Amino acid sequence: MKVLRIRGGKGSETLALEDAEAPSPGASELHVRVCAAGLNRADLMQLRGHYPAPPDAPQDVPGLEFAGEVLAVGARVRRFRAGDRVMGLVGGGAFSEQLVLHEREALPVPEGLDFAQAAALPEAYLTAFDALVLQGGVQAGETVLIHAVASGVGSAAALLCRAAGAQVVGTGRNAHKLARAKDWGVAHALLCEQSPPHFAERVRAATGGRGADLALDLVGGDYLPETLQAMAPRGRVMLVGLVAGRTAPLDMGLVLSRRLRLTGTVLRSRPQEEKMALVQAAERQLLPLMRAGVLPPVIDAVLPFSAVSEALARMQGNAPVGKLVLSWE
Amino acid sequence: MKVLRIRGGKGSETLALEDAEAPSPGASELHVRVCAAGLNRADLMQLRGHYPAPPDAPQDVPGLEFAGEVLAVGARVRRFRAGDRVMGLVGGGAFSEQLVLHEREALPVPEGLDFAQAAALPEAYLTAFDALVLQGGVQAGETVLIHAVASGVGSAAALLCRAAGAQVVGTGRNAHKLARAKDWGVAHALLCEQSPPHFAERVRAATGGRGADLALDLVGGDYLPETLQAMAPRGRVMLVGLVAGRTAPLDMGLVLSRRLRLTGTVLRSRPQEEKMALVQAAERQLLPLMRAGVLPPVIDAVLPFSAVSEALARMQGNAPVGKLVLSWE
Repeated sequence: MKVLRIRGGKGSETLALEDAEAPSPGASELHVRVCAAGLNRADLMQLRGHYPAPPDAPQDVPGLEFAGEVLAVGARVRRFRAGDRVMGLVGGGAFSEQLVLHEREALPVPEGLDFAQAAALPEAYLTAFDALVLQGGVQAGETVLIHAVASGVGSAAALLCRAAGAQVVGTGRNAHKLARAKDWGVAHALLCEQSPPHFAERVRAATGGRGADLALDLVGGDYLPETLQAMAPRGRVMLVGLVAGRTAPLDMGLVLSRRLRLTGTVLRSRPQEEKMALVQAAERQLLPLMRAGVLPPVIDAVLPFSAVSEALARMQGNAPVGKLVLSWE
Repeated sequence: MKVLRIRGGKGSETLALEDAEAPSPGASELHVRVCAAGLNRADLMQLRGHYPAPPDAPQDVPGLEFAGEVLAVGARVRRFRAGDRVMGLVGGGAFSEQLVLHEREALPVPEGLDFAQAAALPEAYLTAFDALVLQGGVQAGETVLIHAVASGVGSAAALLCRAAGAQVVGTGRNAHKLARAKDWGVAHALLCEQSPPHFAERVRAATGGRGADLALDLVGGDYLPETLQAMAPRGRVMLVGLVAGRTAPLDMGLVLSRRLRLTGTVLRSRPQEEKMALVQAAERQLLPLMRAGVLPPVIDAVLPFSAVSEALARMQGNAPVGKLVLSWE
């Protein structure tokens, strides 16, 4: 089978199409023919040497999400059978023609979606669902501040908030991309072209002075101090990404007096039982909404695996609105 | 009735014994003769002009906790009657011979304790209970890092952890005070004389390399970065005090990769329904342990209200081990 393997030295890393040995499933695992895989910023970071794969994943083949067809199942598998269409998250190795994963880490592809569309769902929606619903406890009537709202996770988060009855205030650095936000039900799209960004006053203005109840921060860096200023009393900040930097000054007086909660979260390095639990919760709570069309894939472009360099360059340039998908077909 | 009222200008504020009009209880309130009141750092801060009372509390009479006898009750009161011994938290005004409070904000004084002992309980134990149990979710078998463990809240937190089956690692800046920590079941007492403090490695050593599951930070300032380093994966940090400073650099990469949760909390400014809910939870969960002697008052000294200047000086000098109590008797 073919894989996209990391090749080249420091600063000139590329992904090269190479042959690899096909995997075989364990007793509780599915053997899947990958049809399409979503591209994520984490893949770019891994390529640049900044985000090594967890020890149980392939070290030199990136790819965190996929959609494909079950080729065969292990002896103890009960939830799927050969021919089923599945999608899911893996710790790495999705940029491959085949992979194996535990049956409790796989989700059925919603009817009506093709593989490329399905491959755009797992990372964006599971990240948003875990951060906003399971950990953030979003409630109907609340206001959620979502940074980088035109990104893959950002757009999924906005759609999930709309489905949950919450109002979204979104930020972005690009007016053209931000114009799409109204399609996802974003009530207030705030353009942030300056650095450091200024949005706290605008979030207050959009919420009658109260501030946001929940924030999904995919940016970090100098967004954090301003995010804390934008929160309502007892506001919850979910820290999911750090593209703008790893450190910031923290105003603990504000955190204390406003009783704020800041939670860092990451999916990839979690132990398997937590990943399984997340997928099972998503099957109960997200999949019905995906089947109903309320949580659609937001796709920037679908490119063949052979055009991965073009896809990486597009992501590096912050051009995508929604997800980039690689397809074997 | 007598009260201790804030007098004097900026930098020379004192508490003066003065006459005031006695309060009268509303329909759901208790009218209490205060016998003793705990002294808190917040009183010192209020005296210095740094921590104004909430709008519904007396502005010029400090005092956040008390124990005393019910003199009379409002028409709708059902939980207490005249002659009952009660203790509780108020937004201010406890440095007074009488006060009123809602019956659902009062707790019965545990049998066997006198008023001075009971006045040392509410702020320390309700703060620790709210932060560690209700918000922090402490579990048996976990390790809890408690800063300023010889303080009023610190000692109460350590005793509460012992009752909950959790191991405590405590820090302090004074070897003499820290020596008392073994009385409260503290497994590892770490002396931190330097600034910035260094304790993360010692916390790891005390936990087999894992780090603390929960931290109660009463110090803030440059303790925070080191606290985050000392946490186990998914560790929860409760930020309760800021005596060492309001700001610190935040390593968001650490917060994210270790999936840490940082929560700021304060009791005084909460709306009444939250204060009532906390007291009711404490009646169910804390009071039985207080009655059993498992959660005793930790008292540094009991002084007459007329000696408040001496008590304030002792607190200012960070001398107390446990609580300072003022008594009318």
